[in-house]
Amino acid sequence: MLGSLSISKRMRAVDLIRKKRDSGEHTREEIAYVVNSYTKGDIPDYQMAAWLMAVWLRGLSYAEIGALTEVMLHSGEVVDHAEVRAKKVDKHSTGGVGDKTSLILAPIVAAGGLAVPMISGRGLGHTGGTLDKLEAIPGFNTALTLADFRRVLRECGMSLIGQTAEIAPADKKIYALRDATSTVENIGLICASIMSKKLAEGIDALVLDVKTGSGAFMEKEEDAIRLAEIMVDTAKRMGKKCVALLTDMDQPLGRMAGHANEVVESIEVLKGKGPEDLRELSVELSAWMFYLGERTKSVEEGRRLAQEMIASGKALERFRECIRLQGGDARVTEDASLLPVAKNKAEITSPRSGYLVGTACRDLGIALAMLGGGREKKEDQIDHGVGLEFHKRIGDRMQAGEKLVTIQYNSDAKLAEAKELLGASFAIGTEAPKGRPLIRRIIGG
Amino acid sequence: MLGSLSISKRMRAVDLIRKKRDSGEHTREEIAYVVNSYTKGDIPDYQMAAWLMAVWLRGLSYAEIGALTEVMLHSGEVVDHAEVRAKKVDKHSTGGVGDKTSLILAPIVAAGGLAVPMISGRGLGHTGGTLDKLEAIPGFNTALTLADFRRVLRECGMSLIGQTAEIAPADKKIYALRDATSTVENIGLICASIMSKKLAEGIDALVLDVKTGSGAFMEKEEDAIRLAEIMVDTAKRMGKKCVALLTDMDQPLGRMAGHANEVVESIEVLKGKGPEDLRELSVELSAWMFYLGERTKSVEEGRRLAQEMIASGKALERFRECIRLQGGDARVTEDASLLPVAKNKAEITSPRSGYLVGTACRDLGIALAMLGGGREKKEDQIDHGVGLEFHKRIGDRMQAGEKLVTIQYNSDAKLAEAKELLGASFAIGTEAPKGRPLIRRIIGG
Repeated sequence: MLGSLSISKRMRAVDLIRKKRDSGEHTREEIAYVVNSYTKGDIPDYQMAAWLMAVWLRGLSYAEIGALTEVMLHSGEVVDHAEVRAKKVDKHSTGGVGDKTSLILAPIVAAGGLAVPMISGRGLGHTGGTLDKLEAIPGFNTALTLADFRRVLRECGMSLIGQTAEIAPADKKIYALRDATSTVENIGLICASIMSKKLAEGIDALVLDVKTGSGAFMEKEEDAIRLAEIMVDTAKRMGKKCVALLTDMDQPLGRMAGHANEVVESIEVLKGKGPEDLRELSVELSAWMFYLGERTKSVEEGRRLAQEMIASGKALERFRECIRLQGGDARVTEDASLLPVAKNKAEITSPRSGYLVGTACRDLGIALAMLGGGREKKEDQIDHGVGLEFHKRIGDRMQAGEKLVTIQYNSDAKLAEAKELLGASFAIGTEAPKGRPLIRRIIGG
Repeated sequence: MLGSLSISKRMRAVDLIRKKRDSGEHTREEIAYVVNSYTKGDIPDYQMAAWLMAVWLRGLSYAEIGALTEVMLHSGEVVDHAEVRAKKVDKHSTGGVGDKTSLILAPIVAAGGLAVPMISGRGLGHTGGTLDKLEAIPGFNTALTLADFRRVLRECGMSLIGQTAEIAPADKKIYALRDATSTVENIGLICASIMSKKLAEGIDALVLDVKTGSGAFMEKEEDAIRLAEIMVDTAKRMGKKCVALLTDMDQPLGRMAGHANEVVESIEVLKGKGPEDLRELSVELSAWMFYLGERTKSVEEGRRLAQEMIASGKALERFRECIRLQGGDARVTEDASLLPVAKNKAEITSPRSGYLVGTACRDLGIALAMLGGGREKKEDQIDHGVGLEFHKRIGDRMQAGEKLVTIQYNSDAKLAEAKELLGASFAIGTEAPKGRPLIRRIIGG
């Protein structure tokens, strides 16, 4: 009831919570007040939590999202790569199961002449994270200082690190709170969180891979499209070139999920092998990066350049160089046995003959997490050696008893839990499903 | 994103926040988990704040409100008045401007033979609080222990104290958080907060005075009716007799607002004088208390008994006895100059001739708070001497320049602020407004 008594005219958190609760639209100054006061500790966690829930349920306008992104971006440092003459481009994926394209496209694009300063995240929930995957490589250091980040970028055209204290500290603090208060999956908050970090990398252009389907945070295609549109809009209003590819996450990308084995699969693609879907998407995203980074005059030309970087071995060599510069053992590209590997294997087989018509893709990611390949809490350690290998893709025909998944595991107890979930995660029908494209739509291109 | 990964099956705050956010209905066990874990400190403020905002925006079912009330009630002690043979009855008002009926009806009902164990609140926002008003009486102690509370009740049939640490500690902690997070005005939360405290008094019956109009927390009549229905339902399901009177708060109750002068006006009514509306409502609420407390066979008989207690001077004598037993100076009933009084007076006059057709009643309460007669923060001190005297009621005819309000004040700066607000708080029209009853509806009677 205090909140309703506005004796004084100064800005107060309680009034701004009320405003958003009652579907009001915040001014730029109000957004700045909330974010900056919270980052400084002048607004306590509990008021921010109430505001975030009000935002989650009432939504944010385009203007509010823009203001939130900008304020969060400027809560920290924007990296200056003035000494790098090449255009700086990056890619961001909204996350899924088996999505390891960053490990593939960064070397392709760096080898092709652009710079890729990539600040990535960790796996959360059912999705994997690029940093965790890289850390499966013995010695690979993702915690470089910004000075070292700039140096590695200068020397090999790519560098992959985690968020540092200097980058968007407001986002770091707000994200941790959202995570603990069930206020993560909101399009405006997601957009501001992603874009504030990505724009802090000092890039000229950004390609977004927005996932949709049963393994994506945005399961419904219309939600994914809205998120894509908002992110592209926000980037463009901040003077950055941006395009979003809406891509399928109704099943894992590639055959492999897990950390060490996703590194192996990425190296396969860089060697011109690996599964078709992963190769296609990696090339397509690289092609758009080349185009937006003005390295090629068209996306088609970008595709050809990407394929050339793979065929010539230049992309793989660039990846090896980056691994070395970040302290990792580059021999993993030739000897997969240097990567951690789980002690045991088990199989899930098909209970009947038919066609694979769909997967509970999110549950496949959760099963991996159950094996130790994911986190329930941020502090949890990841087991880089556990993994899943998927033998069938949607549309494939199979016989009863045929292998569906190979499980790499270390703990029998965890295997039992994961098997239960995996056993219920594949839908097998009598008729072949209609084919769906991997890349469903281009937004902002 | 963590929140969406339910690897384990134990109850977690983040999942319950999500459930409410997504419009789910909590089980009794879930409500108990949230409230008890928060009270013990196992759920942090920020998770509770997010849950409260989700509750505010998604609502609670009757069953959830019942569970919440019961869990909050049993978070502390339920006072045992086994040694008092009379039925224990109480009244609760949802709060308004100039609402001092507790000071009048408690002595009436105690004098009439029932026991009134009243645990009251402080003023918040634009509304006054019974405890603050009583504390205008020099020496009056509202912070009795529960043992002294029981003793005073035994000796004079009434006692008025504030919430103690033993009474509904869950409510105390949750209310403070709601206050700071703009999650106060929600019908389910209000009901659980009120009823858990009131039922902890150890009463047999409860009369509710649910205010509606521009000076009520529930401005819209339909909201006030819903709150009344939910509170009556909750009380009955917990085995208590209960009725709610829906009463007018489109203008202050009585002529006086402020602490010392509300004590003066209450004493006037106990002496058979005072303004008509205040007398009528006090008698009506007393009558229902007599009836629900089985002291009279009808409400009509209760009215006669209430009037008799006033006319005989027994109610006033009972008030004096209670003041003495709680350490106060009972001579105030004969000598108002013993009460604090503001140094200065100012007037607001009518800018034109016509009829008073309405007041911005909430703003009248805020103006009083601005003068020092209210709190912006819980820690703020109240100036018991400042006040407002209203000279016109809705429907009264007036000439330009006639007195509308007398302001009792101590600070010129505060006067200026309050005058600005008061000047805009009275609507004067050319035609007499339609008369409205003070008591609009009886719910559950």
